[in-house]
Amino acid sequence: IHAALMAVEAIAASGQRPRRSIEVVAFCEEEGSRFDCAYWGSRAIHGQIDSGEAESLLDMDGVSIASAMRGVDLDPSLISQAKRDDIVAFVELHIEQGRILESKAVSVGVVEAITGLKLVDVTFTGDAAHAGTTPMRMRRDALSGAAEAAGTIERLALEMGDPGVATVGQLNVSPNASNVVAREVRFSIDIRHPDGARLDALMAAIKHEITAVADRRSLDVQIEELESQEPTPMNPAIRSVIEEAATAQGIPTLSLPSGAGHDSQVFAWQLPTGMIFTPSKDGVSHNPREYTAIEDIVPGVQVLARTLLALTEKRMDQDGRSNHYG
Amino acid sequence: IHAALMAVEAIAASGQRPRRSIEVVAFCEEEGSRFDCAYWGSRAIHGQIDSGEAESLLDMDGVSIASAMRGVDLDPSLISQAKRDDIVAFVELHIEQGRILESKAVSVGVVEAITGLKLVDVTFTGDAAHAGTTPMRMRRDALSGAAEAAGTIERLALEMGDPGVATVGQLNVSPNASNVVAREVRFSIDIRHPDGARLDALMAAIKHEITAVADRRSLDVQIEELESQEPTPMNPAIRSVIEEAATAQGIPTLSLPSGAGHDSQVFAWQLPTGMIFTPSKDGVSHNPREYTAIEDIVPGVQVLARTLLALTEKRMDQDGRSNHYG
Repeated sequence: IHAALMAVEAIAASGQRPRRSIEVVAFCEEEGSRFDCAYWGSRAIHGQIDSGEAESLLDMDGVSIASAMRGVDLDPSLISQAKRDDIVAFVELHIEQGRILESKAVSVGVVEAITGLKLVDVTFTGDAAHAGTTPMRMRRDALSGAAEAAGTIERLALEMGDPGVATVGQLNVSPNASNVVAREVRFSIDIRHPDGARLDALMAAIKHEITAVADRRSLDVQIEELESQEPTPMNPAIRSVIEEAATAQGIPTLSLPSGAGHDSQVFAWQLPTGMIFTPSKDGVSHNPREYTAIEDIVPGVQVLARTLLALTEKRMDQDGRSNHYG
Repeated sequence: IHAALMAVEAIAASGQRPRRSIEVVAFCEEEGSRFDCAYWGSRAIHGQIDSGEAESLLDMDGVSIASAMRGVDLDPSLISQAKRDDIVAFVELHIEQGRILESKAVSVGVVEAITGLKLVDVTFTGDAAHAGTTPMRMRRDALSGAAEAAGTIERLALEMGDPGVATVGQLNVSPNASNVVAREVRFSIDIRHPDGARLDALMAAIKHEITAVADRRSLDVQIEELESQEPTPMNPAIRSVIEEAATAQGIPTLSLPSGAGHDSQVFAWQLPTGMIFTPSKDGVSHNPREYTAIEDIVPGVQVLARTLLALTEKRMDQDGRSNHYG
């Protein structure tokens, strides 16, 4: 938000007069950390919050988001008034949260697409058995099965190549005792690719191999798809405007996908949307160590300012075609 | 204990008079479930409980074993009086807790040795990273490393062959979130072999491969040996007496190692000791499903009775030589 205000100040200071209004906005609850409702603010602007949702959505202590809003003097009955139909284009400046820009020493990223995501829950079930008295070949060891599956998942993502990723980040063992062969292992797979067809292909290959591991080891397996988000391409016309704004100022850019979700996802399905990335030191985000050097922020602000000004000069449509006014 | 009483009753009923006293004993706290003191009863008989140990050994609620003893009218100050120097031989009848006898349809097992055990704690440490924005090749993923290590550990135990086993039964991931590449994975390895040299070889191979996995993946690794128990061979003379007692009654036997620990371990280092196994249905123990059919128990009792009687006729020494009296 600070960078966006700086961009608008720079436009004002330049003496150029935008042909349209430029608004600066910061959205609440993009993460969905307290309430299970990512993109709450951006969804509200698009009228995507159902009446009653604010009352029914509870945090871990059973407090509704409506009640939390009233606690800070916000009126949940006004949510529907947040809806806007007059926005022509949306541009978001964000840190990359990854290490691609940093590793290429480029300060400005132009986002091609926000990745598609599938979140999968896998449970292998075998037999708990005494770790001392059960010969290796008589075991149905859920942990050995899960370990083999995790190795296969990593290999398939590596074979698919960047920007495809697949991550086993959460894994729980039962009974989880050193002298008991594991009966059950439940783990998550987070699979992402900005190309929908390749995402589906990676998902299918992973499912196929997990089933094969379970079959070979006589383990039971359950594979449940918890979440599926289509990839969200950024508007090609806005991408071009961003590229031109950078080139005009001699600022190098790198096109790259976003591996994380953003408010731009909600906007991009409704109206022309683009994203500018700045580098993240060591790729760290959501952490006190999150850091972007001022030398990397300034070029992002410069590109944002010129992009915003240029967009006020253009007629935009959702198909990505753009025309200068007049 | 019931089987041992039946054996002694059978000897009495047979009218034969043993040349030595036969005592039946059940030991307390063989498991060390409440207090971290496996073989408490058998250690007491060998004078292996230090003065003060009963007061200093606490359960999870901070209650000492001395206090728990007083709670059931036992006097911990009398523990040292449990010491015995007049025992000539010790024979233990136990369920196998595995599926070897069941799978071979043999009712009586003659234990060759109680397995040696090494309990190892391994911690892989990498970098926590965003599962969406961190390319596969830029990761230091502790979970992928642990999964590869677990696969290698299983393979090495399979290559060593029965009765060698290695088990990863406990595994904990941090931060354990679906959208975060794991920073740290800590897991146990339970390694057992009744042959000390092969146990050491398996342990060394596992350590070597874990270090290689960590090196290849640029992960930090810590390997800590928490526990090490030497294999305990059973006395060869007593094994022969058990075999003869079975043969004389036309009962088939199978020689096999014990993958679990037993009170006989404590005895075997002090005096001639042997173990007889009966089958365990599905190898299950420490569970309400633990079961041995009466048809499998009776031959065990018959062999025990004849073994005990025969042992009262023999002069035993700790080296495993035995001579008939006179």
